[in-house]
Amino acid sequence: MNWTLAARAARLEPSTIREILKLTERPGVISLAGGLPAAEGFPVAAMAEACARVLREHPREALQYASSEGFGPLREWVAADLEAHGLQAQAQQVLITTGSQQGLDLVGKVLIDPGSRVAVESPTYLGALQAFNPYEADYVSVPCDDEGPSPEQLEVAAGARFLYLLPNFQNPSGCCLGAARRQALAARAQAIGLPIVEDNPYGELWFDAPPPPPVSVAMAGEAIYLGSFSKVLAPGLRLGYVVAPPSLFPKLLQAKQAADLHTPGFNQRVVYEVIKDGFLQQHLPALRARYKAQRDAMRDALQRHLPPGCRWAVPSGGMFFWVELPAALDATALLPRAVEAGMAYVPGAAFFAGNARASTLRLSFVTVAPARIEQGVAALGRVLAEALSS
Amino acid sequence: MNWTLAARAARLEPSTIREILKLTERPGVISLAGGLPAAEGFPVAAMAEACARVLREHPREALQYASSEGFGPLREWVAADLEAHGLQAQAQQVLITTGSQQGLDLVGKVLIDPGSRVAVESPTYLGALQAFNPYEADYVSVPCDDEGPSPEQLEVAAGARFLYLLPNFQNPSGCCLGAARRQALAARAQAIGLPIVEDNPYGELWFDAPPPPPVSVAMAGEAIYLGSFSKVLAPGLRLGYVVAPPSLFPKLLQAKQAADLHTPGFNQRVVYEVIKDGFLQQHLPALRARYKAQRDAMRDALQRHLPPGCRWAVPSGGMFFWVELPAALDATALLPRAVEAGMAYVPGAAFFAGNARASTLRLSFVTVAPARIEQGVAALGRVLAEALSS
Repeated sequence: MNWTLAARAARLEPSTIREILKLTERPGVISLAGGLPAAEGFPVAAMAEACARVLREHPREALQYASSEGFGPLREWVAADLEAHGLQAQAQQVLITTGSQQGLDLVGKVLIDPGSRVAVESPTYLGALQAFNPYEADYVSVPCDDEGPSPEQLEVAAGARFLYLLPNFQNPSGCCLGAARRQALAARAQAIGLPIVEDNPYGELWFDAPPPPPVSVAMAGEAIYLGSFSKVLAPGLRLGYVVAPPSLFPKLLQAKQAADLHTPGFNQRVVYEVIKDGFLQQHLPALRARYKAQRDAMRDALQRHLPPGCRWAVPSGGMFFWVELPAALDATALLPRAVEAGMAYVPGAAFFAGNARASTLRLSFVTVAPARIEQGVAALGRVLAEALSS
Repeated sequence: MNWTLAARAARLEPSTIREILKLTERPGVISLAGGLPAAEGFPVAAMAEACARVLREHPREALQYASSEGFGPLREWVAADLEAHGLQAQAQQVLITTGSQQGLDLVGKVLIDPGSRVAVESPTYLGALQAFNPYEADYVSVPCDDEGPSPEQLEVAAGARFLYLLPNFQNPSGCCLGAARRQALAARAQAIGLPIVEDNPYGELWFDAPPPPPVSVAMAGEAIYLGSFSKVLAPGLRLGYVVAPPSLFPKLLQAKQAADLHTPGFNQRVVYEVIKDGFLQQHLPALRARYKAQRDAMRDALQRHLPPGCRWAVPSGGMFFWVELPAALDATALLPRAVEAGMAYVPGAAFFAGNARASTLRLSFVTVAPARIEQGVAALGRVLAEALSS
């Protein structure tokens, strides 16, 4: 049969991370690869109660077609929550999405033409590259230092459709931008007319102090901001949101209608039932404490087991350590040996839009318990030491 | 701020149907417009039980990230169900989607370039046009007679990327293709190398006899086939699927990953719990009986109340009557008067990819009860009679 693929389909590729996850699903492998939240932290009892309540009190509305914008009370909740975090937004600017991945897809659909330049951090979130790729973006990597993207070098992005930024405990780098850096970036972006798409899946997962207000705050209401319930409740619900300036909202909404009509109303109502009376205020401290203990376990294990020449910063929140190996090592090439030794990571190369640094890797500390983190990092240490000595 | 829209965004437009639905939400208006399944038919008790069971037995798996392909047992169920309907497919060919609308979006993303020709029925499903529009398709309308698209005139579609076909109780026409027409269309499509995308949301909603086997059966395993749980269970779950030939499956899967990572695993497991032991065999006969009674009520009401010169076929399943008015009437122009008179319909023009016939409209018989159908159609009859006499 004469199926002909669209040109953009050439930019669709198997997800490196998902292919690796399949590899590492074999029993006995300690996977520090996937960014899976700790299942122990899922609010199962609250969910069960909320499901029962929604199906008892609003079964027909919850199971019927619903508006593409999203469930009104949930949009109100998001707007109020953002305000509490310093970002002014109206509920009418909130579009509920099927996970924040869909927010990235809609942004790409509405804003990227083939050959459009899109500015990203270096490294940047792989899922964003995957969302933007089929729209045939050309990427511009903004040079980053230890404090994040460099405002002085933002000119390389001038004329790009937007700068995609993940300021809180970035995936993969773990970097959290300081307040001064945020302001400098926003000021520079405004000066050169560079719009910003800010992604914030991890902001609530802080260990010592909350991160500074969103970069969007300094963008005069003109940034796009993405959030998610995946990391604070559970990813299997696929619930995220996009906050857009009024000038862009209608096009994103129409793209949403075309993409899946609306996000499951049942899920929206259940999550709203779970969170509406302040559940997150009790839930998040326990989640932060859990992740902080696991971060500490990984910090100590890295200190103990990684050979000299490896570098990493200790993240103050989020889910990931980003490790820079001695320049001679190629993390992609070493992965099969690591799996052989009983552990898995994600090679860092996948997180670069260009000029991939092969000697980097990402470790997640949230998925497995401290004792297994120790074992996994010890195995990684042996593989690296052996590679360095050969 | 310098936001620049992608060229494709110009093809995104407000959904006519959704805008109309908003208009008709005012109390007192009997809406025969929206294609909303009867909420009385939603399996609320079975859903509540399934939610509780899933969260009791598999809470962590249901709430965790899951595979982009979909929940394995649900994919197996779909493959077995298709086989029972005459279509051979492997579970590995089944991609679970966030409603079948997402299936249409993924098909568009992978198969349509700007300016690609896409062949559609005339009229065709509005949601498909909305999904394909942002990929900048050029449409070719295949001439249709009372039995559906004409195989003799399929040559007009030669060279199109695919023919989009909704053979069972089409939205909006209500037409169900006979077995001979299906075979003739498949044979002709194969002869001219025209791939087929077959959409089947309504096939289970038959009143007297099941429809003939899918057109895909005669396409030698090379068609794309879309299905949905929206009409047999509930649309608020957003659960559909695409069945694709092995040559296309990987690209659709990658497009799915990019679009929303995966369809909510919780929803997939809940639906699987509901249907796995034969629930639909008990549920569907009651749903068919309900919709048949409502179809009969609308058939009788149309007979009683519509003025001479209106034409319609009585659908043998599905959700819709398609009414052709005397040529002088414009259903779009008349809609405000109908709403004023207390009822709403969808003007037929939105369902044409070109050469819209303004003197057509669509009525749904599934959303409101028989007594209100009678009232709504009577109001329509008055509006039409008045328009004809003025």
